[in-house]
Amino acid sequence: MTRDEIPTPAPLLDLDRFEKNLRAMAAHVAASGKRLRPHAKTHKCPEIARRQIAAGAIGVVCAKLAEAEVMAAAGIDGLLVSTEIVGEEKVGRLMRLLERAPDVIAVVDHADGVRQLAAAAAAARRRLGVLVDVDVGGRRTGCVPGDAALALARAVVAAPALRFRGLQGYAGQCAHVPPWTARREASLKAMAPLLETRRLLEAGGIAVEIVSGGSTGTYNIDSELPGLTELQCGSYCVMDLDYLRIGGRQGDRLTDFEMALTVLTTVVSVPAPDLAIVDGGFKAFATDRPFGPEAVERPGVTYEFAGDEHGRLFVRDPAQAPPLGERIEFFPPHCDPTMNLYDRLYAMRGGRVESVWEISARGKSQ
Amino acid sequence: MTRDEIPTPAPLLDLDRFEKNLRAMAAHVAASGKRLRPHAKTHKCPEIARRQIAAGAIGVVCAKLAEAEVMAAAGIDGLLVSTEIVGEEKVGRLMRLLERAPDVIAVVDHADGVRQLAAAAAAARRRLGVLVDVDVGGRRTGCVPGDAALALARAVVAAPALRFRGLQGYAGQCAHVPPWTARREASLKAMAPLLETRRLLEAGGIAVEIVSGGSTGTYNIDSELPGLTELQCGSYCVMDLDYLRIGGRQGDRLTDFEMALTVLTTVVSVPAPDLAIVDGGFKAFATDRPFGPEAVERPGVTYEFAGDEHGRLFVRDPAQAPPLGERIEFFPPHCDPTMNLYDRLYAMRGGRVESVWEISARGKSQ
Repeated sequence: MTRDEIPTPAPLLDLDRFEKNLRAMAAHVAASGKRLRPHAKTHKCPEIARRQIAAGAIGVVCAKLAEAEVMAAAGIDGLLVSTEIVGEEKVGRLMRLLERAPDVIAVVDHADGVRQLAAAAAAARRRLGVLVDVDVGGRRTGCVPGDAALALARAVVAAPALRFRGLQGYAGQCAHVPPWTARREASLKAMAPLLETRRLLEAGGIAVEIVSGGSTGTYNIDSELPGLTELQCGSYCVMDLDYLRIGGRQGDRLTDFEMALTVLTTVVSVPAPDLAIVDGGFKAFATDRPFGPEAVERPGVTYEFAGDEHGRLFVRDPAQAPPLGERIEFFPPHCDPTMNLYDRLYAMRGGRVESVWEISARGKSQ
Repeated sequence: MTRDEIPTPAPLLDLDRFEKNLRAMAAHVAASGKRLRPHAKTHKCPEIARRQIAAGAIGVVCAKLAEAEVMAAAGIDGLLVSTEIVGEEKVGRLMRLLERAPDVIAVVDHADGVRQLAAAAAAARRRLGVLVDVDVGGRRTGCVPGDAALALARAVVAAPALRFRGLQGYAGQCAHVPPWTARREASLKAMAPLLETRRLLEAGGIAVEIVSGGSTGTYNIDSELPGLTELQCGSYCVMDLDYLRIGGRQGDRLTDFEMALTVLTTVVSVPAPDLAIVDGGFKAFATDRPFGPEAVERPGVTYEFAGDEHGRLFVRDPAQAPPLGERIEFFPPHCDPTMNLYDRLYAMRGGRVESVWEISARGKSQ
């Protein structure tokens, strides 16, 4: 298949850039003495997970159980499900997943959750690895740091069918803070209670093997934390405009990782000299950010969403207007929800399609 | 399967409401002497298309070729692809689709498009039905009304492998204008050039069999237009908050159609007395509108997006806080991109799962 034969809209992965990103993160975690368990919610693609592990990652984090089911079915080990698994339907599925993936790790943030998992694992005659999920200020999931976390950890330790592995804390509120110095200050402050909780547990005689957290935005901040054992960064492998724009340790762009993911579109209408319409809209790009996609190496055009299935390109100089049929690539505003729109990813090298990878966990938010 | 066994997040269709919507629209188009070719981009679901046709629709509109391929494979007739089909890859696929669905209709808005389709259809020894797509002010696809449309229509008529069927004009810019009286004024004004173009073609001796357009927001406005033959409304069958809020002919809510689509979520964390976290975020709901989902019959909670996989529920009265595991339904902000996130739709009657329908054209934006 040639690039011109790719049905648009379609996500393209620049393999050279992607591989460079895997190497850069691997070198960083190695140098800082951490482990890397990258978040698979970014890509939902077992082939990417496989390559992340080949590059040194110890497994992948899955946002949801269904994502972990897909990864396990594809032979990916070292799975951590970062959202609490609640209710009979899901706990039942987790027990079935444990048969195939005995090392899968779940998280808990509530005593009822501990009881539910402990009872199910006991009934299934399995032992389930568990992290206590601690809220580090994101006001999402996670128990209060300190004594509440200690009480939960004790409940896990006391349950014979559960195996306490450690702590999770995700400071999502810090991931996109610009510039880097402010992000560093915010993240170190947010993560401090997680590390204090670790010390509290250890003082209480509970061994803490894993402390998992971090994001692409704070990867070189979290790696400073002595008590954190592993990073959960996801977006670094493909990047997006959102992360690019938060800035790096130097400069107002985060260029430590390369923009490896684009969406290929086709100009399907040129209704006016200053306007071209491409075949990608709300169903082709993530729409959760306050900005839209940006054309790659295609100066003179500005993208605006034009509904579910179209994008409007404003053309600054009609002499440079894209002709009907021109194929234009865009950097997506946000990588995760963009990947989640597609069934396959076109892995490109030197402008050619090297492979087509299934995004098998696409839509697996259950 | 019971409601409690549905893996969340998941889209639910209230069948009583859905069927009422189909009947209401069927009665309206019958009374106004129009035809209905509803837009399948809303639902992407062949079973819904089948039921729309059983309720009197003459077929369905597909936003993209890939959507039409899925509908044709499911045995749905009367397909109109409302976006221009451009480039070798897509035109080739259209020719293959014609073998299975000889009555499929394509749209054109450019002389190059006419040439491309004419050459391909001639080479394939097929005759392709074509509408000329006219821009009625939406600044999306479509040629300029009047002489430009006449010239294109003549080019279609002159091509032996094409069959000129008529005109398409979609005034998307009017679909959401509140209140109804302002919407009516805007839509009648926008659509006037389409009807003038029809008269121009007929004066030039070109028979215009089809004039297709309209939206759920303007369904009872476009049906006043004497020259329009069919309505393309999509959202009416399931509805969403966006259309609800534009108001109807009476009142500040569009209640002519019922809110039949919801997304079922589960409370996976209750980290604080005033906070509950559900398992649906950017990957569970459309994010293209400036507002989020709204809980159904669950007073006292307000939803806020909390990332890709979570929603934050602010609880007004902690005494009414949802317990861990509570299943809460939400009306989506926008139906089309919400449906496009899921592989199956749970068709509910009286709180029970009556059927599970495949959303087979999910992601088919190519």
